[in-house]
Amino acid sequence: MPTIAAGPEIERLIQLLALLPGLGPRSARRAALFLIKKRELLMAPLASALQAAMEKIEICRVCGNIDTQNPCAVCTDARREPSMIVVVADVADLWALERARALNARYHVLGGTLSPLDGVGPDDLTIDALVKRAHDPAVKEIILALNATVDGQSTAHYITDLLHDAEVKVTRLAHGVPVGGELDYLDEGTLAAAIRSRTPF
Amino acid sequence: MPTIAAGPEIERLIQLLALLPGLGPRSARRAALFLIKKRELLMAPLASALQAAMEKIEICRVCGNIDTQNPCAVCTDARREPSMIVVVADVADLWALERARALNARYHVLGGTLSPLDGVGPDDLTIDALVKRAHDPAVKEIILALNATVDGQSTAHYITDLLHDAEVKVTRLAHGVPVGGELDYLDEGTLAAAIRSRTPF
Repeated sequence: MPTIAAGPEIERLIQLLALLPGLGPRSARRAALFLIKKRELLMAPLASALQAAMEKIEICRVCGNIDTQNPCAVCTDARREPSMIVVVADVADLWALERARALNARYHVLGGTLSPLDGVGPDDLTIDALVKRAHDPAVKEIILALNATVDGQSTAHYITDLLHDAEVKVTRLAHGVPVGGELDYLDEGTLAAAIRSRTPF
Repeated sequence: MPTIAAGPEIERLIQLLALLPGLGPRSARRAALFLIKKRELLMAPLASALQAAMEKIEICRVCGNIDTQNPCAVCTDARREPSMIVVVADVADLWALERARALNARYHVLGGTLSPLDGVGPDDLTIDALVKRAHDPAVKEIILALNATVDGQSTAHYITDLLHDAEVKVTRLAHGVPVGGELDYLDEGTLAAAIRSRTPF
């Protein structure tokens, strides 16, 4: 990034902001200026929010979620169905499912998907811990909520194979037309899956 | 923003990140997760960079630039031409001109442009200070580097009128075809300006 006419502290702030996903060098400069202009309203709160997050955030020892309590709020929530575990690749997926409010289950965050090309093998994920949790007699169903990509689906197959001797039903998310989606814009694979899994109207 | 299954510290971090220009709720969540995953590599440095910036950044009392010294590094740079002052609306414009390395002058940051619709009048900008600086006998030229918008150009006219009794030449940036630009995509106003200001080849 070219040097700007400002002190090293500002340069450093811009460089760090530019590392965030969604921000490049140009938008990092805009964000830095915005922060400097809103020093009391935004910069100070953000600095202390980062500090607080640094100090308090932990990774849940049960499911791999991030939270400021350990085990996390989901795992300790007595109102959650203890018989279902929803397997997700990433905390972002857990958040997405929670926003959908579609289920009231517990989660298991794998920490990624199997990806031989990127050197991600079973030992890099929390698959062992999942198999252990699946053998808990209270658990009846494992819902594989993994991306519908090659890596996501091969991870799903791998986990299903490992769970064959556990007393659980293994399910996966339905494929089909996204709600609000137009058929015209959908790929053939999704359309074929939607036809195969058609439901009575 | 819907509640996510994480502690209040994480929620607060996401809410603050979502206020940055270029980040919405979704990219703020991604940025927060990224920060949490890179706790030592990015989150801690960003927290301390914000803290350092908070403590050190000042607004230059001469030109309105932001820097960690006051007067700023540009104003105190003895190698800069003291006879030229480049008037910009915002620190972002100053940075853009510095990146272009097109001049070796000092600046004057107005803090915005006149905008009756947004309630921005002359007293909201540093126009008085600019007029004072323009009366310094060392200053020979005022370059108005303002946006080629209605507000930018009316600000330029307003400043030019105020400077009529100062012993300075008032100039503005040239209009024309952007370097690398294609004529086909240019608006008529720019094309007409480029024709009017054509130069010998």
